[in-house]
Amino acid sequence: MTGRRSEAFMKIKNRRTIAEYKAGIVSGDRRILSQALTLAESTLSNDQQLAEELIDNLMPYTGNALRIGVSGVPGVGKSTFIDRFGEILVRMGKMVAVLTVDPSSEKSSGSILGDKTRMENLTNSKQAFIRPSPSSGLLGGVSPKTRECMLLCEAAGYNVILVETVGIGQSETAVKAMVDVFLLLALAGAGDELQGIKKGVMEIADLLVINKADGENKRAVSRAKGELTEALHYASKRENGWVPEVMSCSALLGEGLLEIWEKIETYEKHMRMAGLFEKNRSQQRIYWMKQQIHFLLERNFYANAEISKKIHAMETLVESGQKSSLAAAKEMVALYLNPNRQ
Amino acid sequence: MTGRRSEAFMKIKNRRTIAEYKAGIVSGDRRILSQALTLAESTLSNDQQLAEELIDNLMPYTGNALRIGVSGVPGVGKSTFIDRFGEILVRMGKMVAVLTVDPSSEKSSGSILGDKTRMENLTNSKQAFIRPSPSSGLLGGVSPKTRECMLLCEAAGYNVILVETVGIGQSETAVKAMVDVFLLLALAGAGDELQGIKKGVMEIADLLVINKADGENKRAVSRAKGELTEALHYASKRENGWVPEVMSCSALLGEGLLEIWEKIETYEKHMRMAGLFEKNRSQQRIYWMKQQIHFLLERNFYANAEISKKIHAMETLVESGQKSSLAAAKEMVALYLNPNRQ
Repeated sequence: MTGRRSEAFMKIKNRRTIAEYKAGIVSGDRRILSQALTLAESTLSNDQQLAEELIDNLMPYTGNALRIGVSGVPGVGKSTFIDRFGEILVRMGKMVAVLTVDPSSEKSSGSILGDKTRMENLTNSKQAFIRPSPSSGLLGGVSPKTRECMLLCEAAGYNVILVETVGIGQSETAVKAMVDVFLLLALAGAGDELQGIKKGVMEIADLLVINKADGENKRAVSRAKGELTEALHYASKRENGWVPEVMSCSALLGEGLLEIWEKIETYEKHMRMAGLFEKNRSQQRIYWMKQQIHFLLERNFYANAEISKKIHAMETLVESGQKSSLAAAKEMVALYLNPNRQ
Repeated sequence: MTGRRSEAFMKIKNRRTIAEYKAGIVSGDRRILSQALTLAESTLSNDQQLAEELIDNLMPYTGNALRIGVSGVPGVGKSTFIDRFGEILVRMGKMVAVLTVDPSSEKSSGSILGDKTRMENLTNSKQAFIRPSPSSGLLGGVSPKTRECMLLCEAAGYNVILVETVGIGQSETAVKAMVDVFLLLALAGAGDELQGIKKGVMEIADLLVINKADGENKRAVSRAKGELTEALHYASKRENGWVPEVMSCSALLGEGLLEIWEKIETYEKHMRMAGLFEKNRSQQRIYWMKQQIHFLLERNFYANAEISKKIHAMETLVESGQKSSLAAAKEMVALYLNPNRQ
């Protein structure tokens, strides 16, 4: 929990001007894009303000990509899927950016079960750009940073953004709030239920894809597909009139991927025709406005002179149990809001 | 996203005085405990303030339970495990409270793959108290509410608190920040990796339990246990000097559960002897102080007269794309912080 504080003492170096970042990004310079993403991910206040200004400057260049969320529990084959799926898009002439959101990686200091070489094919393509997104950390809250990275990639000309998210829960709702299409990968289970399908996540998925439809697993996939299609048939209809389709693929063999892209295009068309594509993005903008408000409030609070003077003493009282977390928080916020009354 | 707003118009009724809640909880009245939990979960500002005051009043009665987090992906058998494990604790004379944290359940309006009757055995015990915790919602951030509920249960005399959390990611880090022991349930996979094990989550687990060690699955469990034990052997040592143990059980058959409890007791003893038990709780209190600060800042912001007067117009500008999320957030926060300059 001290990581943040120590980083604040890091030297700021190699920062460009807004104009330099902007020119580089708009011209598609990958190196400058990388640097801008680093800026956006920085926890330094100066960097953050620079990144915010940059993104505001780049707004006219954003919004032209199709934003696709790809989710699924570990082991479902997300990396392979994105690698092979991205490859197809690249072959179609698209510019593909991949952002990965992994809220639980923060404590990973070394691999235990062995890291895989991820996304080999895509890594070597000049039309593809892969970037892991910063963890939002133990302090919780969905970071607006992944969305900022997405906007920067859009400004750099990437027209398909794949946002990869791991697991189940809050990272999914955050990703749902930044994409146009949400694709959930699953596996055919051995038991009575699909593996890696969580009801809450399934309900935000626009497209369900059962992966690993290859070899001996084919029959199980076909059965699971049938069951799930039936289950969705009985589910309550979505507000947007879209019935989420169940598809299958073998990312490993590259089978079924083109069909998935075509289905995504069908979905996009459906949403645009109904006026829901832009409506979704409007609602997302409101969501992110609120996230940004939270973020700015917090930043202002900790930068406050009175607070930084007294917060450590307060932490000591809380640590030793002389004051409850809640009482301490209330006192600090009261001091922040009404400094004269103290 | 309108749920919050509409709830604000709900009538407040059946609210007791602090003294009534306190007396009821301390005497172990389940009905009053339930009502206090409802109060703590409420999104109404008055309720929240009442709950905060109540919890501050109850602080001397809290802290005496062993707090155990139970995590694992869907299908791993968490409910059955908690049900049977809790049953054993009840038979030992313990008072068991179960809180479930499920961040992804917010959109669930009906079951698709069929709800299960969860925790049948425990539900019928007078020594057990089961309570689903409120989702922290799409707006993200870890709610301090589950922790408040935990404190209320402790004040009511429950001396083992099981906090159940689904999946991978942020809910885990939040639960880790409120428990003394973090137990991760996993399954033996068919492939080369354990199912439902995510590196980041594994690294915060104090105890790894491979469930469903029954019938034909026994051999796979035994193999997985060996592999995982070996993998952990090579992992970097924990700061607290504890090497997370790999155990197995069949929650269904009730096998291996007593051993898990004994291991938890060993862990507790290890942590207490090293002075780390209380140190962990101290750090957690700091963490929750920060969470409370965020929460109070947000509440104060939205309650501000200037903000509530202008936020809807600003939202309209953001919705229509005339203003970026970030620019709007900055303007609103500036108005909040310096009302006279506008």
